[in-house]
Amino acid sequence: MKIQRVTVTPIAFRDPPLLNASGIHEPFALRSIIEIESDNGYIGLGESYGDAPALAIQQQLQEQLIGLDPFNLNQLRAIVQATVAANKPRSMAGAELAPGSHASKAVSNAYSAFEVAFLDLQAHYLKVPLVDLLGGAVRDEIPFSAYLFFKYAEHIDSPYKADAWGEALNEAQIVAQARRMIEDYGFKSIKLKAGTLPPEQEVECIKALKKAFPGYPLRIDPNGNWSLPTAIRMAQLLGDDLQYYEDPTPGLEGMAELHRRTGLPLATNMVVTDFDEFRRSVALNSTQIVLADHHYWGGLRDTQVLAKMCQTFGLGVSMHSNSHLGISLMAMAHVAASVPNLDYACDTHYPWQEPDEEVIKGGKVPIVDGCVKVTRAPGLGLELDYGQLARLHDQFLSCGIRQRDDVKQMQRYKLEWKAVKPRF
Amino acid sequence: MKIQRVTVTPIAFRDPPLLNASGIHEPFALRSIIEIESDNGYIGLGESYGDAPALAIQQQLQEQLIGLDPFNLNQLRAIVQATVAANKPRSMAGAELAPGSHASKAVSNAYSAFEVAFLDLQAHYLKVPLVDLLGGAVRDEIPFSAYLFFKYAEHIDSPYKADAWGEALNEAQIVAQARRMIEDYGFKSIKLKAGTLPPEQEVECIKALKKAFPGYPLRIDPNGNWSLPTAIRMAQLLGDDLQYYEDPTPGLEGMAELHRRTGLPLATNMVVTDFDEFRRSVALNSTQIVLADHHYWGGLRDTQVLAKMCQTFGLGVSMHSNSHLGISLMAMAHVAASVPNLDYACDTHYPWQEPDEEVIKGGKVPIVDGCVKVTRAPGLGLELDYGQLARLHDQFLSCGIRQRDDVKQMQRYKLEWKAVKPRF
Repeated sequence: MKIQRVTVTPIAFRDPPLLNASGIHEPFALRSIIEIESDNGYIGLGESYGDAPALAIQQQLQEQLIGLDPFNLNQLRAIVQATVAANKPRSMAGAELAPGSHASKAVSNAYSAFEVAFLDLQAHYLKVPLVDLLGGAVRDEIPFSAYLFFKYAEHIDSPYKADAWGEALNEAQIVAQARRMIEDYGFKSIKLKAGTLPPEQEVECIKALKKAFPGYPLRIDPNGNWSLPTAIRMAQLLGDDLQYYEDPTPGLEGMAELHRRTGLPLATNMVVTDFDEFRRSVALNSTQIVLADHHYWGGLRDTQVLAKMCQTFGLGVSMHSNSHLGISLMAMAHVAASVPNLDYACDTHYPWQEPDEEVIKGGKVPIVDGCVKVTRAPGLGLELDYGQLARLHDQFLSCGIRQRDDVKQMQRYKLEWKAVKPRF
Repeated sequence: MKIQRVTVTPIAFRDPPLLNASGIHEPFALRSIIEIESDNGYIGLGESYGDAPALAIQQQLQEQLIGLDPFNLNQLRAIVQATVAANKPRSMAGAELAPGSHASKAVSNAYSAFEVAFLDLQAHYLKVPLVDLLGGAVRDEIPFSAYLFFKYAEHIDSPYKADAWGEALNEAQIVAQARRMIEDYGFKSIKLKAGTLPPEQEVECIKALKKAFPGYPLRIDPNGNWSLPTAIRMAQLLGDDLQYYEDPTPGLEGMAELHRRTGLPLATNMVVTDFDEFRRSVALNSTQIVLADHHYWGGLRDTQVLAKMCQTFGLGVSMHSNSHLGISLMAMAHVAASVPNLDYACDTHYPWQEPDEEVIKGGKVPIVDGCVKVTRAPGLGLELDYGQLARLHDQFLSCGIRQRDDVKQMQRYKLEWKAVKPRF
């Protein structure tokens, strides 16, 4: 079996005006949809970053993967390594929350994008669900958490009709957002993206969520936007309200010091993002829970390796998310299904994406009782809706965004806005 | 696809009177041959420890695996864990070189035995070589090293005709052994099992090998039988003669101190034998090269995880062996083929097994130019020779050995022999 077609299609979909440590989401989020097809007619799907540097590598890889055996992941990795080495991509300032932009991650980003598609094709060929190639499901319902954001009611200059979620800039609005999200999806735990409002106000929101949803595990994620003293002060206010304290302060050293000072379980998707950082984190005891993300950890298999490493070194495993569609969601669900020690509900931005902007047949993947179900359908269990794909590709072409920059976008709202971290 | 038959067949095959740190090999080595068959007629093979405690677990698992999906390795692991927990096996004194005997390893031993058979069945079903389920081959010729032993000419009381290798108790005999092994198999590197003669004599053998085979990478493995002062003294005599210095002295702390004192690259299959020891070794810097062994590291997939961990923590990867037949050899070869950072020739006892005592069709797997070839045949590329299997099973029944005990065996030669470590 050989690969005879590789298609990388950049797409853009509407993204609400969600606030974060860098600034604010742009009106469109970029992704790439990857299709590989074998000479005997099987198709594998992947979804990855659509930012320009990531996309450039993916597009360069298209031709080079023709003729490859879709079981040969080692050869895929070798080709990706050679291609990235030839490119010498540079990191871009101001794009720190756009994971496709980091040079050091370029190999594992590109490898991950195709690895999922290769595995999906293998599984379709074998007529088994993808999770079976990962050792089988230890669970078939994968819990996700309600992912709350501070947000504006509408993007600046109204590029399209405002989303249905409305503004969220205080406790009452955040509780209302949580309530709606829990009513719609049945989530059993709550994460608040923070690092945006003055820290005390964000802590007040956690207190309000605790009161409104007693017994729900709560997390706060300031994206490293709090100085060590601020993070310690907020820890004192938060007490034992949190399931875990996610990336409150920057750096492996800062996180290690925060843990020494507070004893709180710290989670991260910012200071441990590759195996080298994992090693350094172990030496420093910087983090107690690693948020895995197959898009940058090297695909589904390396996410399993990460989980085993976490088990070895006594760390917990949870899962990180960026804005994404259903292919990413199902890839996350399949690997989560295979990892025995994934003890936390996973993050997902999926509820923030509009129902008319999914590229898979049948529309959005259902989230019921807070869970995504992994079925016995072959591969990821998905097929592309080519009409939708074309529409979102047109939207990519017309939207004018080529590389996510939440700092620059925020400057459209606030002229004096700068990339400062930690801001508080 | 469901498993409908599981057969665990203990076998015994002739094993030469090889000397080691514990004492001497018994006249027969024990293994178990594992067959699983699916309801659609595919067969997967495994080979593991045949010592009584390991065998007891494997036999208890036979019935429990009926009906399992051979892709569901996570469920296999759960069943193994429950079965081992119900057994509470105890470690046996005097059996330290019989890896099937360690209670702490019982889960991963039993899991490994069946994991290989499950993967072999999967690969036969998929009509792909097993290595394709491990990400594909980065090499198809797997280098092994010449594995030299001090030995007697014959077992005590002559249980059968003496082997053709003769006695090896001095430099000239060891060089002759190496020459024959290299002529027969084309090995390009040499390992000397040590811990047997007075250490200075063993070092003299390394010097003689260096002179006889200039440019050949050399290793010495005293199996932790040298005290720290002895290991340091021998390191001074050895200088830079070695590719690596394998388990010269016992314990994670002893190895760490030896490395601090000598700077030599230390390899181990004794102080890092599971993920927990890996973690402790990293903290102490006890070892620079880990000898993987899928039989006790948790199968082929966990051996890959180990290799990735070694890469993460800057350690080298090589491969350990016990007395084994062709199913183990091919499983070792397939996983070795898939591991990019397996930078050393693997160990194997295979040349010590007699050509008329292989259980696979076609007889012994060829080793040419020091390498085992991984072909494109489905699975491990092997089929059982049921006549041979029955013959070696009868030999198991009649040989009287149920648990390897090299100490007790040596006491038949030397009444005063005791289990002492380190002996020198």
